[in-house]
Amino acid sequence: MGEERQAEVPFQATTIAARVLYADTDRMGVVYHATYLRWFEAGRAAFMRRRGSSYRDVEESGVMLPVIEANAVYLKPAHYDDVIRVTARLGEIGRAQLRFEYEISKDGVPLVRGFTRHAVIAADGRPTRLPAALREALENEETTNEKDIVD
Amino acid sequence: MGEERQAEVPFQATTIAARVLYADTDRMGVVYHATYLRWFEAGRAAFMRRRGSSYRDVEESGVMLPVIEANAVYLKPAHYDDVIRVTARLGEIGRAQLRFEYEISKDGVPLVRGFTRHAVIAADGRPTRLPAALREALENEETTNEKDIVD
Amino acid sequence: MGEERQAEVPFQATTIAARVLYADTDRMGVVYHATYLRWFEAGRAAFMRRRGSSYRDVEESGVMLPVIEANAVYLKPAHYDDVIRVTARLGEIGRAQLRFEYEISKDGVPLVRGFTRHAVIAADGRPTRLPAALREALENEETTNEKDIVD
Amino acid sequence: MGEERQAEVPFQATTIAARVLYADTDRMGVVYHATYLRWFEAGRAAFMRRRGSSYRDVEESGVMLPVIEANAVYLKPAHYDDVIRVTARLGEIGRAQLRFEYEISKDGVPLVRGFTRHAVIAADGRPTRLPAALREALENEETTNEKDIVD
Repeated sequence: MGEERQAEVPFQATTIAARVLYADTDRMGVVYHATYLRWFEAGRAAFMRRRGSSYRDVEESGVMLPVIEANAVYLKPAHYDDVIRVTARLGEIGRAQLRFEYEISKDGVPLVRGFTRHAVIAADGRPTRLPAALREALENEETTNEKDIVD
Repeated sequence: MGEERQAEVPFQATTIAARVLYADTDRMGVVYHATYLRWFEAGRAAFMRRRGSSYRDVEESGVMLPVIEANAVYLKPAHYDDVIRVTARLGEIGRAQLRFEYEISKDGVPLVRGFTRHAVIAADGRPTRLPAALREALENEETTNEKDIVD
Repeated sequence: MGEERQAEVPFQATTIAARVLYADTDRMGVVYHATYLRWFEAGRAAFMRRRGSSYRDVEESGVMLPVIEANAVYLKPAHYDDVIRVTARLGEIGRAQLRFEYEISKDGVPLVRGFTRHAVIAADGRPTRLPAALREALENEETTNEKDIVD
Repeated sequence: MGEERQAEVPFQATTIAARVLYADTDRMGVVYHATYLRWFEAGRAAFMRRRGSSYRDVEESGVMLPVIEANAVYLKPAHYDDVIRVTARLGEIGRAQLRFEYEISKDGVPLVRGFTRHAVIAADGRPTRLPAALREALENEETTNEKDIVD
């Protein structure tokens, strides 16, 4: 993220739960490694939504946050029917980039850790500045905590 | 399902919620049609789990219920960030086959209807009878209603 | 497809090959049932492309063909690393609907049969007529046969 | 990969082609970021197969190579119907770990670069040494070059 000034943000986190489906597994009997990126996305979306700034709203305001890097380190496998926890936090917030960090765990045991980096671009695809209102929302504590009931 | 005797079962249903992710959409801006089969699976798994007979337990008892037919009729599209409801019910229960039926809706409006048919096979891949305990569980009302908190 | 006049079209077919990835399998050790819909799409796209009318071109001309029904019957499973053949053909062609039919096989043995039905809609989402040029292309033999080299 | 002795291997590469499906895209109109991990897998599998050591054979010999880290850097997006090239090479080969590197490009322009790291484990899940025959195969040039015809 080069010469950008960046702030280390306090590590406020958002945690969601998910159930492992057959669709998520592979023939090794465990969750296919790319599936975790889907849960990273779910965690990141919940992080934003609970701060009053859903990613749908962000896009409707004309700003997009495409993934420019994704990384996952696999410590232990998740299995079919497991209930896993996905914790997402904002790692870094720059003028034109964001970094989210993730941990996926089961019963308190970490399974996967990772991060995604995001550019901030306008509808025309050009880099733009992170809108001040969005920055403020992301740096906040969870302000809403509406949860869907899912299983 | 040919000459099998089948019982029409009362239409006890299980409903779960799910949030539409970017991962689920396609470039038409709506949910990709194959994604709904994933939600059918989630609904079916919840149906069994809430009747005390999770599909993981079923498999551990040596019985598998592979999908032998899947069908979906698409009425209206779901969009990114929508919260959809998945309702699953047992349509037919035969000696060696099952049929589940599904409706996916948003705000009470049906989006997709479908069904899956399942064979009942043993660990060696041969057709077997549906275990009596499983049949009884499936014909029951929801006996547990533990829900994960997810968003 | 109701009161529409439909023509039975000659069963010209297009066949492509695909390799089964780990990503496609589930913990039963076989291909996850929803994965086949992806191959149906690949077969359908090749069918159109080889008749000089790629689906990208169709969309750029302002017409979309969303899936309004999908069906698959599973006869035998495909396994990891298998090379499977996907055969797609146009089943029915109406004024405002299409039906494609599929067979997925391995070494000449059918594994999965299915179909998709498609509406014909304009960019504003309203039903429209199938453009004459597209209809003509779809009813043709393969006119191009460019193949990508993939494994 | 810590204290392990590792050999830098010559950068023999294997390249395959793939066609972008609707299934691969998201509502931003481009390929969903997790989809590239699927193509990494396809490239890695082809790399092994063309050296006479398909991953299916490897597993049948009792050795598994689960992904322990995955990374992707996204430079430019791929779009629906694009034909992309996936180049896979062996980056590092240690006693009990492997690293593959990938580049996905279109018309010679790099779109995504990444890597995966793999443990070498036995059927019981314990770390084991990379079998000598597999190591030799991986360090070879392509010895077979059978390609499926796909589009």
